[in-house]
Parts: sequence; structure tokens; C-alpha cells
Amino acid sequence: MLNQILTQLETDQDNALDRLFSLLRIKSVSTDPAFAADCISAADWLVEDLESIGFTATRRDTTGHPMVVAHSGGDGPHILFYGHYDVQPVDPLNLWHNPPFEPVIEETDAGPVIRARGASDDKGQLMTFIEACRAFKAATGALPCNITILLEGEEESGSPSLIPFLQANADELRADYALVCDTGMWDAQTPAITTMLRGMVSEDFTIHAANRDLHSGMYGGAAINPNRVLAKLLAGLQDDDGRITLPGFYEGVSPISNALKDQWESLNFDASSFLGEVGLSHPAGETAYSALEQIWARPTCDINGMWGGYTGAGFKTVLPAEASAKVSFRLVGAQDHEAIQAALRSYLEAGLPEDCSISYRVKDGAGATNMPVDAPYFTAAQKALSDEWEKDAVFIGCGGSIPIVGHFQEYLQMNSMLIGFGLEDDQIHSPNEKYSLKSFRKGARSWARVLHALSNI
Amino acid sequence: MLNQILTQLETDQDNALDRLFSLLRIKSVSTDPAFAADCISAADWLVEDLESIGFTATRRDTTGHPMVVAHSGGDGPHILFYGHYDVQPVDPLNLWHNPPFEPVIEETDAGPVIRARGASDDKGQLMTFIEACRAFKAATGALPCNITILLEGEEESGSPSLIPFLQANADELRADYALVCDTGMWDAQTPAITTMLRGMVSEDFTIHAANRDLHSGMYGGAAINPNRVLAKLLAGLQDDDGRITLPGFYEGVSPISNALKDQWESLNFDASSFLGEVGLSHPAGETAYSALEQIWARPTCDINGMWGGYTGAGFKTVLPAEASAKVSFRLVGAQDHEAIQAALRSYLEAGLPEDCSISYRVKDGAGATNMPVDAPYFTAAQKALSDEWEKDAVFIGCGGSIPIVGHFQEYLQMNSMLIGFGLEDDQIHSPNEKYSLKSFRKGARSWARVLHALSNI
Repeated sequence: MLNQILTQLETDQDNALDRLFSLLRIKSVSTDPAFAADCISAADWLVEDLESIGFTATRRDTTGHPMVVAHSGGDGPHILFYGHYDVQPVDPLNLWHNPPFEPVIEETDAGPVIRARGASDDKGQLMTFIEACRAFKAATGALPCNITILLEGEEESGSPSLIPFLQANADELRADYALVCDTGMWDAQTPAITTMLRGMVSEDFTIHAANRDLHSGMYGGAAINPNRVLAKLLAGLQDDDGRITLPGFYEGVSPISNALKDQWESLNFDASSFLGEVGLSHPAGETAYSALEQIWARPTCDINGMWGGYTGAGFKTVLPAEASAKVSFRLVGAQDHEAIQAALRSYLEAGLPEDCSISYRVKDGAGATNMPVDAPYFTAAQKALSDEWEKDAVFIGCGGSIPIVGHFQEYLQMNSMLIGFGLEDDQIHSPNEKYSLKSFRKGARSWARVLHALSNI
Repeated sequence: MLNQILTQLETDQDNALDRLFSLLRIKSVSTDPAFAADCISAADWLVEDLESIGFTATRRDTTGHPMVVAHSGGDGPHILFYGHYDVQPVDPLNLWHNPPFEPVIEETDAGPVIRARGASDDKGQLMTFIEACRAFKAATGALPCNITILLEGEEESGSPSLIPFLQANADELRADYALVCDTGMWDAQTPAITTMLRGMVSEDFTIHAANRDLHSGMYGGAAINPNRVLAKLLAGLQDDDGRITLPGFYEGVSPISNALKDQWESLNFDASSFLGEVGLSHPAGETAYSALEQIWARPTCDINGMWGGYTGAGFKTVLPAEASAKVSFRLVGAQDHEAIQAALRSYLEAGLPEDCSISYRVKDGAGATNMPVDAPYFTAAQKALSDEWEKDAVFIGCGGSIPIVGHFQEYLQMNSMLIGFGLEDDQIHSPNEKYSLKSFRKGARSWARVLHALSNI
């Protein structure tokens, strides 16, 4: 049966490209209210397309841009597929070589690419899944799984409607697990499932000292300087080996498995080119870990911002009344973000000298996500991807967080499997965004194989 | 003879007040070009007044506001008197209880005061000296010293014309020493000569790391964060006892003499009220020294500004490409500002981790000023002040610098003696500036005694 589906995808591939181009022509920029009607058009286009292949699809309006929800019904495992139809703004427009909403196929040294805003993020990616569904319907008259599709229109603008929507429609949307197509391959030859996402806890705080800015001629020496206090507190968060000093910080951090370690070593990650691209040469994290472990598997502490006193041109001999910082920790494994926030506050408060106080602008935190990679659907999907690309699919990490994964866990009690076909050089969020034609075609074939494999677990 | 002069001052005191009021009515705000003509009027008024008592006085135009230079000629020590006729802006105007350029005598709990912009800083103060000269002329027909007067019109706006003027007219202006009337008494009962001014060296620098801002999800852990580097460097400048750690920093810092220490102890400086007024309670400098020593006699290190990364509202998980700070050191004794700047740069550069570099925005430095308090003219002036106020005049320090003192040393090779009658609560630079009527009257009497004493050395 699988061969029939793959053949159907080959047969229909020009039409698939036409459909993607139609969707890419819709200017569904979610951040700019001027494009609100375009967002509705994109949602309507998707509703119509999904209905054309037998889904019960509806546009679900929100206080922002609409959601699209579609149900196939049927047998097999119940799967929720997630993607987003909104795109990033296109400015600076003058850096685009073609108009961003007039998709073209362009030949490059790495093969043909689809060039347009949203080609990769996320219209091209979500259409790989829909094309796989279409091929199943065309070739067999049915889908191999019970599929629910959720397509969002606010992913690029902070998803303000998402959590309320998940809460209000939890029973409708909850499935056995979610498939999310918004990530990338390891490289152009190597398919990947992203299985580790770091969590984060952040704190934004101010240290207060005198009740007003003071002149350092008058008070310098006798009045406490909150800049000095802040520098000392921030400097003390890490030791000389890059290890974070907060008591209990590493609780819940486990070494990665030997299997994963072997897999990552086989990736031949080039730390010097990764860092070299941004003008650096030395991994700056914990000295005992490789650069790849530092960004995927180890927690971090970063001062994202700090400021106090006079920061303009010239000089002002001021002793400021306050000094502030924004600090964040990327979390891994089972680190408890609430315990770490508490440990940070204890540390800061214990280090405050007399006459100083601290105030916080609270931020939420979230733990790391570790997918159940030993579950049968991970094994099945990994094999399906390896078959399509004729190269072992790898489980990779991601230094950042992908909020939808946490939301699905929190509001739908559901794990996610992150499979995508984007490449490092897709220039998402930048001018001249592209999606490899190979990603688009083999992506659809990959989903066909994955759905087939999942239905046979 | 002195009694004659003092009697003359008493006789003429209503006229003296009228003259000061005339000068106070001129809106000689130097920072605002709208008042340029008023600055010229003030200079002309002073030229005319000085000519009326026998000085050869001229208005000396500059590219900014004019200087006034007057010479008495005659015998005795050659003295350069310095004051400034320009005043601070008056805004916020709505906080003034009387119009700032309509001087009035106001009764207060502490006695009558002259209320007007410039009453204390520096029109009232400079007129104390001119009234003393006038009384000498009226009573004896001559001045007791060879007096040159230099009155500036740009002191409140950074003195852009001063150094070129001193350089161009060095031979005309150079005297045995300078008298400067722009400082204060220790308290309303205790006259003072300010004899120690701290110097300063400052450095404004940036630490550079990656060639652009990075996302902490992507790079956090592996990429060096210049905020962390900066925090560590700044934190290391002082140890836990507030001692500055730069090698050689304390070279040239001598303990103050026992005589001065005894004098300062007799001042009963109230550290808790000094700090309490700005919301603090504990002297934060070197633990081995009193708060008064910390601000007058000890060097300091202060972070006047620091900034790096995202400092706006909300959160941005950025690893910045650079982080910056403005650091200054107040210097005392014979500390070498060039050596200290070099030591700071060595320290910063030695502490830079791999992949980081540093750039500087150069600032000048200046050593501390220590007056020759054992010189006969200091002793003579101290006795004259003590006689007038019936209380021992004290030698005090000043945490900041008074640029004119350094300029006289550098360009005219001349020491200064800083005598003034301002009080802490004069609200100079603020709404409702005042000068105690007692300061004005006894100030003039003090100068009469000082000039008399100086002429008899």
C-alpha cells in the first residue's frame, strides 16, 4: 500500500506545488493588522483545501487571527497535527531578490528551491503533511490514522489566542500524541526528530540603594553603589569553569544516554564553524562538555541585559539609585524551574549588602521537554524517515524552547513528536526565505511513510 | 586700620545689599543662548562697579560669554580673585516661591536670607569680596594688596572659554596665589578653608564578543556572554572590605596628618544623618575609615554606568555582542592618574577571556589637589576667619574636584585658597536658592580681615 501512496505523490507533485504557491501568495503576516484580512483568506483557503480531501474543516475565529481545525475521523491512532499559516513580516523589502509573495522556483548550487515568505516557515512544511494526507485519500480512499489538524494564525506574533483556544477546546483537540512540523533536518541529507528542548526560567530585577542618584564627588566612597552590588551578584552566578553556583541548580540534570551520545558524536558537529560564523572560536560553557552538549543538553545561565547609572555619551559621575538585570537559565532534564527561581532569589537576597533592597518583575518559567524517545511511535517514525532519506534519522536537541510543545503537554496532556524538513540556510524570518524543493517533496513522502508506520504500530 | 574698614562695611551695608540686588536682577543664565545679552549686561555691570572703586576693569569677549578682568595695581602680595557671574537655569519655575530674578529678603528660622537665583552661587559670594575692596578704598583710599579680579560667565556651562583665556592671558593673570569664593562654611557657625580636593580618572569602555547579538536558545552555553565578562571584571575591582584591588593603586595615598584628623573629629560629622538624608545608613567604603575620611581623604572606585544586552520592557533572550561600562576613580594625595589608568587597562585586558576584545573611549584624568596648608597665607587667612566668626576656622576636604583650582595650577602655576560662605542648605542649582544675609555681611567682613592679614605677612 505504501508504494501506491508514494507513487500518487510523484504523480501529483506539480499540482502540490501549485497548491503551495497559491497559499504562499496570500500575505498572511500576523504581526501587522493591515494583513488581518489576508490571514482570514489563508485560513479559508486551508479550510477549503482540507474539505476537498474529506476533512470536516472549520475556521474558528478568535479575538486575533482564526484557527483552522479539521477532523478526519476514522480508525487507527488518534493524531493531532499542528502547523501555522501565518508568516513573518517581509521588511526590509529591498533585500528581497523576488517579491516575497510571488513564489518562484529558483535553481541554486544545492538544487532547486521554492523562494517566498513562508516557503519554509511554515506553509511549505505544513503542506508536506497535507499532501501526504491527500495522497492517502486519492490512492486508498481513506487516511491510515484518525487525524485532527490544528493550524494557527498567530505563531509569529506570540500566539495570544492559543492557550485560551486549547483550554476551551481541549476535549476536541486531545489526541494520543501530536505531530508538529515546524523544525528542521540535521543537514540536507540527514532527517531528524527533535527530542530535547531546553526549558527556561528568567528573572528581571532591580537593586535599589539610595533614594536618588548621587554625585560621586559628594558621596563616592561612603554611599553604596548598586552597580557594584549587581556586578558582584552577577559575577558570582558562575564559577571559573562555567559551572552555575546556585545551590541545587544541577538537581534533575542527568547525563545523556550513551546511545544518544554516540549518535551525537556521529553528527560530526563542527563547533569551530558554528562559533566561527558569529566571530567566536571557543565554547564558553562548562569546560567538561562539548559545544553540542553545551547547547542541547546542559543548562545555562545568561545575563540577557544589565544596566545602571549613566549610559549616554560622555561621562557623568553619578552613583545611581538602582541597577537592574535580566537573567535567564536554560533548563534541561528534570530541573525544577520553580526551585531554581527560588534559589536565584535566595542567592540575590543573601548577597545584598546593608541599605540595598531588591524588587522583581516576575516572569514565568517552564521546565525542559524530553520526549519519550523509547515509545513505539518514535521508533516507528525514526525508521520511516530513515527509509525515505536512506540515512539513519537522528534524535537531536534544540537549545531553545518550542512553546507549542509545552502547551500541548500542559493543556492537552499530550506529547509531541517534532519532525520537519527545514534546513539551516532557509533564512526564515529574513529576506529571501526559501524551502528546498527536495524538502517539500521528500517531506510529503516522509509523512506518508510516518503515517503508514504509525498506523501499523 | 582694620576697624575702620569693618565700620565702613557696617555703614554701607544697605547700599551693598542694593548693589547685590541689582546684579541678581540680571538674568545671566549661561546655559541658554536666550540669555546671552543678559550675560553681557552682568559683565558690563561688574566692569562699571569695579571701575567705580578704582580698578582698571574691562569686559573681555570670548567665543562664549565674556570674562571680566580688573586690576588694582598697588603694593602688597599679588592676588588673583576668581568668581563667576553666570547662574544656573531656573526651571522648574513653578517651584519658586518668588520670581528667581526679583531678589527679596526673607525671614527664616535661621535668620534673614537673600532669596534669588545666584544669591549664593556665585553673585552673593563674589560681591562679598568686592564689598571688602570697596570698604578699603572708601576708608583708606587704597587696597592692601595688588589685586587682579577674574570673573567668568560660563562656570555653569562647562567653562568652554576658560582654558584658552588662561593660556592667552597667563602673564596678565598670574599672581602669587588665587582666592576663590565658590565654596562653603563647615556649618553656619564654623568658617572653613577647603584644602583637599580629590582628583579623578575615568574610563569608558566596551567589551566585544560575537560579531552580532545571538539568541540564547541557539547559542546559550557555547557563546561567551560579554555581560558575564563585564560583571566579573567590575566585581573584581574591589574586595569585600571595599579596598581597590588594582596593583599599585594606593601608591601616593598618605594618611592624613594627626592635626587634620583631630580637626575633622572635632567637626562631629554625623554620618548617619549625611547618609540618612538619601535613604542610606551604612558607610559603604573601606571599612577601616570613617565616612568623612571615605569622602574627603580616601580614593574610590565607582561604576558610574554599565549596560549590555536588552534593557527594555519585557524579556529578550539575547546574548549581546558587547557590554559597556563607565568607571571612575576619585584620587587623593599623590596618586598618579596616568599610572592608575594604565593599571586599570592592564587589569581589564588580563581578565578578558578568549574571543573577547576591549575598546576604550578615552577620558582625561587629573590628580588630587592638596593645598600648602602650612604656607603663611593659609595660616593668616585661617586666623582672620576665626577672628571674624569667633570660632576656629577649619581646613576641610571636598569629595569632588573644583576645576578652576586645577586650571590655575596647570596654566598659571599658581595655588588657590578656597574660602566661601555658602551653607549646605543654600539650594544652589535648585529652586528657591538663597544666601544667608549673615553670610553676605560677615563674608565681606571676613574678606576685609583676610586681605588685611595677607597684606601683613
